[in-house]
Amino acid sequence: MAMAMEGEVTVLKNASIVTMDQGMRVFLGNGAMVVEGDKVVAIGKTEDILASYESKANSVLDLSSRWILPGLINTHVHTSQQLARGIADDVDLLTWLHGRIWPYESTMTDEDSYLSTLLCGIELIHSGVTCFAEAGGQHVPAMARAVEELGIRACLTRSTMDTGEGLPPSWAAETTEYALQVQEKLFEELNGSADGRIRIWFGLRQILNATDDLLLGTKAAADKHKTGIHMHVAEIPFENDWVVKTRGVEHGTVTHLQKIGVLGENLLAAHSVWVSPEEVQMMSHHDVKVSHCPAAAMRMLGFAPIVEMQAAGVCVSLGTDGAPSNNRMSLVDEMYLASLINKGRQAYEKGMTDPTALPVETILQMATINGAESVLWDSEIGSLEVGKKADFVILDPGLWTMVPLIDPIANIVNCMRTENIESVMCNGRWIMKNRKILTVDEAAVLQQAQKASTNLIERANIVLPKRMNVVQ
Amino acid sequence: MAMAMEGEVTVLKNASIVTMDQGMRVFLGNGAMVVEGDKVVAIGKTEDILASYESKANSVLDLSSRWILPGLINTHVHTSQQLARGIADDVDLLTWLHGRIWPYESTMTDEDSYLSTLLCGIELIHSGVTCFAEAGGQHVPAMARAVEELGIRACLTRSTMDTGEGLPPSWAAETTEYALQVQEKLFEELNGSADGRIRIWFGLRQILNATDDLLLGTKAAADKHKTGIHMHVAEIPFENDWVVKTRGVEHGTVTHLQKIGVLGENLLAAHSVWVSPEEVQMMSHHDVKVSHCPAAAMRMLGFAPIVEMQAAGVCVSLGTDGAPSNNRMSLVDEMYLASLINKGRQAYEKGMTDPTALPVETILQMATINGAESVLWDSEIGSLEVGKKADFVILDPGLWTMVPLIDPIANIVNCMRTENIESVMCNGRWIMKNRKILTVDEAAVLQQAQKASTNLIERANIVLPKRMNVVQ
Repeated sequence: MAMAMEGEVTVLKNASIVTMDQGMRVFLGNGAMVVEGDKVVAIGKTEDILASYESKANSVLDLSSRWILPGLINTHVHTSQQLARGIADDVDLLTWLHGRIWPYESTMTDEDSYLSTLLCGIELIHSGVTCFAEAGGQHVPAMARAVEELGIRACLTRSTMDTGEGLPPSWAAETTEYALQVQEKLFEELNGSADGRIRIWFGLRQILNATDDLLLGTKAAADKHKTGIHMHVAEIPFENDWVVKTRGVEHGTVTHLQKIGVLGENLLAAHSVWVSPEEVQMMSHHDVKVSHCPAAAMRMLGFAPIVEMQAAGVCVSLGTDGAPSNNRMSLVDEMYLASLINKGRQAYEKGMTDPTALPVETILQMATINGAESVLWDSEIGSLEVGKKADFVILDPGLWTMVPLIDPIANIVNCMRTENIESVMCNGRWIMKNRKILTVDEAAVLQQAQKASTNLIERANIVLPKRMNVVQ
Repeated sequence: MAMAMEGEVTVLKNASIVTMDQGMRVFLGNGAMVVEGDKVVAIGKTEDILASYESKANSVLDLSSRWILPGLINTHVHTSQQLARGIADDVDLLTWLHGRIWPYESTMTDEDSYLSTLLCGIELIHSGVTCFAEAGGQHVPAMARAVEELGIRACLTRSTMDTGEGLPPSWAAETTEYALQVQEKLFEELNGSADGRIRIWFGLRQILNATDDLLLGTKAAADKHKTGIHMHVAEIPFENDWVVKTRGVEHGTVTHLQKIGVLGENLLAAHSVWVSPEEVQMMSHHDVKVSHCPAAAMRMLGFAPIVEMQAAGVCVSLGTDGAPSNNRMSLVDEMYLASLINKGRQAYEKGMTDPTALPVETILQMATINGAESVLWDSEIGSLEVGKKADFVILDPGLWTMVPLIDPIANIVNCMRTENIESVMCNGRWIMKNRKILTVDEAAVLQQAQKASTNLIERANIVLPKRMNVVQ
């Protein structure tokens, strides 16, 4: 019922539409869009669209006072960490990794990962996301099963490591060859599955867990399959120092990746916080994509030179990172945060914030079309254009969160909250309508996820200190 | 109907309760609280409370799976700027002030201010706020009328200036004497009104708009009336430089205020971003209160040394600032932002963020009991204790925004969104139940506010540049 019938025609009329097309066209109340099957087949003024399509339409929706946006794209999210929300708050980075995240991730089962991805997907859909790039987890087939059910679009990545100190025993023994083979197999089995909504990428957890053989092998494999590489890059100063020491380069991870030939247009570099001006130029030159995760940056890593990257022509998109690093999985909030923190960061450079930095239009690009470019999918998603997939969000701006609407496009970035996200279509199918998820049973998933999380934390022997004074 | 009858007894049972009392007591599912009239008369374990109060209760609410928090306190908000949301996005500070905010504020009428406060109040209540400190507007009686209707609690302040360059003509002529007299009159007429929910404070817009006579006169008047002073302090480096030049002190505003004797426990210093370590000590020594506004700090001002203030014993609370500086009026989001930005700010000091900075417990104190101390009202609000006013929030943590609940108190700060705020009581009266505001007609206010805002922007001759390419 929720799945559009083959060739079924839906007309959305009287809408405001932010197309994010190359001309940055926007319709203010006078827009209409036609969806046929899984594609947008027409977009224009309501009167023109109705003249051509009203007679063929299976349904006509009146979207007066509503806005249509391209589906948001979350370019860095650990879906398998959703069950870990709250297990690593207010702790130092070493405790975060060795005491909480590694025990959690190395203990989780296929079924845990499946539930975690379902739970995360529910939050993503409520936050207007129609496509995400998985940052790397252990159980890709389980993730794929969840993505298939959720009706969302995803680039799935296996967390891959062939070296590193202090890794949990079950991860430590992986050879370079095995690491590559297992990903080749995932690619063969799952790339293009779920009606083409799932794509398989190659993963590199981070340079401290990758030999040069793995870096080079991954690049070769991704190039061969014309797919992407998802890697955490330049997260903390220690990482760069370690690369300088072990690889003998001048600065850090980006410099080393450039030197050995891994920088390229299919590299999605998450975070990229601690990069030098020269490295920003390298990233621009090689068309590397950057996933900027404002909340995780503030909480865990520091502030990337996003304004400088934009100026250098680097394609920057937005990510939430995983639940224990953020802890809201909301691209709506990340738009707000990206605006705030990149205006504020200027205070350190210039003695004053720059409230003109990253204007609203730029932030919207980051969350949509830049996201699509980052996941190498911009021929089909990221903007509302004839021939692209029908991936979009309907929002109701008429709530207390956004009124008055004086500069409504600005309000989408600066005021909108997830309350405003009303309905979501992905691949021509309604996956949420009137804030109700149509593809999975939300209440059942929440309940199962809570149980699975409690059980997993216990199995992983993770014990959290008590907060406040509990009255027994 | 929504107003509790004199002496009516309501029992809330089976709840989780974060009391924020001195012992930081928390009940996990086994808590109960009794409200009689406008006060909390008992709090304890459900079994004990029921034994004493079940027979006297007019109503018993089962709050299984719900949490009760003290009502949040927003210590810096310009309620009269709510109609200006979106009029000053992506512009430099001079355009912001001279081209947008001053024309807007100096053109607005009593009725505009009334509607603006109603609109802002609706957003505050949905965000769990039961008390706010107005940062200073022109039309205090209009604000008071709105606050009375909203059922919320407020410290209202008149925006006061007796000097300054480039002020709108209607503001420029105010003498020091008049500025103080008009506030004395407001105090007499409105302090203690709305069943004691309204208190009148003295206002100082900022030091660039205040002669020393006004600073001293304000301090004397506030001391005499045992009320507070609300002032913007050390917002930008230019302010400090100007004070050094015109007043001949070593550092800036705080140093000057200390020198002339205006620092004191009744001074609520908003922002206080550009303060030296010596000035932090001065603020601590004089028990000055600081309203930290994380979103506005990032967007407009820069990052205050909040961690250092906490360490020095300064009472820091949270504010949203006004709609054109933020643009969400959500203390729920400010808790999240305060956690993120103060962890992140350390990256500049130490080369790494400090994810242990401002733990969850501290953030909750800032939003509740510190807020109460900041508005000089902690004898009656800010924590859930016998004898205090019944100001509290009921939240539902069982949504996709917060599940799983592994460290539930942490999730209140790091995950909670306004979606989770279910019901709000202020002064013993339900002002929101099940997300429906009971005191004012929300839909009607939104509609009237949109009209009033459009009209006011036009009268003030504020013209915004167009965004994107509108298809006509």
